[in-house]
Amino acid sequence: MNLLVDRIGELVTNDPARGRGPLGLLRDAAVLVEDGRVAWIGRAADAPAADRRLDADGRAVLPGFVDSHSHLVFAGDRAAEFAARMAGEPYTGGGIRTTVAATRAASDDELRFAAGRLREEALRQGTTTIEIKSGYGLSVADEARALRIARELTDETTFLGAHVVPAEYAGRADDYVSLICGPMLRAAAPHARWIDVFCERGAFDADHARAILTVGQAAGLGARIHANQLGPGDGVRLAVELDAASADHCTHLSDADVDALASSATVATLLPGAEFSTRSRYPDARRLLDAGATVALATDCNPGSSYTSSMPFCVALAVREMRMTPAEAVWAATAGGARALRRDDVGVLRPGARADLVVLDAPSHLHLAYRPGVPLISDVVHNGVKL
Amino acid sequence: MNLLVDRIGELVTNDPARGRGPLGLLRDAAVLVEDGRVAWIGRAADAPAADRRLDADGRAVLPGFVDSHSHLVFAGDRAAEFAARMAGEPYTGGGIRTTVAATRAASDDELRFAAGRLREEALRQGTTTIEIKSGYGLSVADEARALRIARELTDETTFLGAHVVPAEYAGRADDYVSLICGPMLRAAAPHARWIDVFCERGAFDADHARAILTVGQAAGLGARIHANQLGPGDGVRLAVELDAASADHCTHLSDADVDALASSATVATLLPGAEFSTRSRYPDARRLLDAGATVALATDCNPGSSYTSSMPFCVALAVREMRMTPAEAVWAATAGGARALRRDDVGVLRPGARADLVVLDAPSHLHLAYRPGVPLISDVVHNGVKL
Ligand SMILES: [Zn+2]
Ligand SMILES: [Zn+2]
Repeated sequence: MNLLVDRIGELVTNDPARGRGPLGLLRDAAVLVEDGRVAWIGRAADAPAADRRLDADGRAVLPGFVDSHSHLVFAGDRAAEFAARMAGEPYTGGGIRTTVAATRAASDDELRFAAGRLREEALRQGTTTIEIKSGYGLSVADEARALRIARELTDETTFLGAHVVPAEYAGRADDYVSLICGPMLRAAAPHARWIDVFCERGAFDADHARAILTVGQAAGLGARIHANQLGPGDGVRLAVELDAASADHCTHLSDADVDALASSATVATLLPGAEFSTRSRYPDARRLLDAGATVALATDCNPGSSYTSSMPFCVALAVREMRMTPAEAVWAATAGGARALRRDDVGVLRPGARADLVVLDAPSHLHLAYRPGVPLISDVVHNGVKL
Repeated sequence: MNLLVDRIGELVTNDPARGRGPLGLLRDAAVLVEDGRVAWIGRAADAPAADRRLDADGRAVLPGFVDSHSHLVFAGDRAAEFAARMAGEPYTGGGIRTTVAATRAASDDELRFAAGRLREEALRQGTTTIEIKSGYGLSVADEARALRIARELTDETTFLGAHVVPAEYAGRADDYVSLICGPMLRAAAPHARWIDVFCERGAFDADHARAILTVGQAAGLGARIHANQLGPGDGVRLAVELDAASADHCTHLSDADVDALASSATVATLLPGAEFSTRSRYPDARRLLDAGATVALATDCNPGSSYTSSMPFCVALAVREMRMTPAEAVWAATAGGARALRRDDVGVLRPGARADLVVLDAPSHLHLAYRPGVPLISDVVHNGVKL
């Protein structure tokens, strides 16, 4: 059984060798999908016969979104904390520790159901590849459990035991780092592809982060870092030093940080949903792009600081608030995310790539930014199967 | 045939006599719908039997959104103009005149199809009442045609011949105003409930606006004004002077403007989608609310400056950018819109009100701002009928 996506008005391939501009745009195109892979791309007039046909009817088609940063495994929500923050009121709740307590108290099935629901929600919005982090367990058993559940939903799982020092280790950060680097990593590693550290004043400093990431890399995990979100710091330079796949947030960057990113394979992953929902200053994507750094967009979907699962929303914010062009934002949300996960089989449409694509209810990729907030994802094909 | 919306976790009634706070919140509630009207509201445990049942399963239910400002009758789009503006590039296209030319050239069925598509899109996002303006015809026949088509979609139609002076009247604004006040109004009035003027430097001044609105009121139409969007001006005070139902945009207000709104029945309708898509400064909702003015939120859906049809997106922007609380923003998007249309049968859930309600895929109205960009509208009941 193969599938022809036919009569595509505008096809974003992200393959400049195949079409116009950095997005590799083709007009009046078709894509043949077979065994979960792209088998052929070309002009609709030349399309081969197929068992089934999805008529795009002149609409735009792009690679499925690659959301390279999410925290989907948790219980509870923090809507009241959000409302208090937006009103500028003090909030005496527990912040992230509220989510840790709720997550630890939840059953496996409760966590599985909640995470699965968010995964589905993201998929309906066109996210065909998603990275999912642990980080609300913060014990050996709870971190391993979060990763087992995440692994049921994606191959792109990230061990984030170093999200925050849990209450029971207050004042004993060194001991908690030893736990992470020893028993927690051993329990987590079989279920994880990546290891991540929240490297920020009040969380983990650069020495702790280096120790954790280095031991994680020795265990076969790839490195990524939450870096320079709340203030200037060493996170970005550490990411480059360790050849991390991605430095995420990048809100407060020095010139040296920008230069380091631009001359490395480390992607700057920007998470404008977090700035939207915390009413903070946005990262300067234009500065990074102009310096030659690779930029990705992701949702940071989590119940505390960015409870959006919508990549189209992040694209619109990137254009409004971070001076990316619509084309740069679409690239960053697809091919950029793939780079941040060091994948070459997603975020691009060419023969052999995974058959992940979205049909927009619009004639052009521009409409993702031009029509903010509107659910424009009309059809999603994931692994060659139409949802 | 009646319908019971049952097991509502949080019901927003907008009736403070019926529940908690300005939103009149009820927990564990149910709503009985009969003949297109709300027949009963109460505790789910006390709910009467019904022919059909919609199980909200603990989710939040609110009145359908009332979008009191849209421009849905047009042809073509201006995506390229949007992309150029976002990139800070000069754009030599025709702006609004591009849309006028495309609209005039379109057939009735093309306009009907395009407007109907946007109406459907808004309805799926929970907009159960929508105001639709003319304003891309700008000739007697084309304005009347736009209103006939709008009237097929809504009762809340607005004659906006005074959107811009068309090219063929360049330098002869007085002549165009005479046309509006005479033959155009006569052709438009049978299909319109409202009359509106774009009162702004470069469009129509206060004297023209007063003349147009006064003659419109004499013809039985209610007044509304596009006022103080691009700079300070006389629009808001004129709206209050004429007892207009709404002054729309309100971005640049003097203290006198705020005081005038606060001591009048004229609603300040804020359109944050326009500021989002033109990268302009947002209106100060907090200042208006603190002064005691009534605030509504609407989309301004149009192809030039705000091509969103999403009231949830406007709610999220209002909280992020205009310092409204989530409750204030939800009220403004429902009851506020109803006030701006001088309606008491929509934007509220109480016996006798129109049975327009939305079920959120979330436990609380807070999630509309807390989960920006996420399509949270799970079910829509319009005129008592589930979509
Ligand atoms: Zn994160
Ligand atoms: Zn308008």
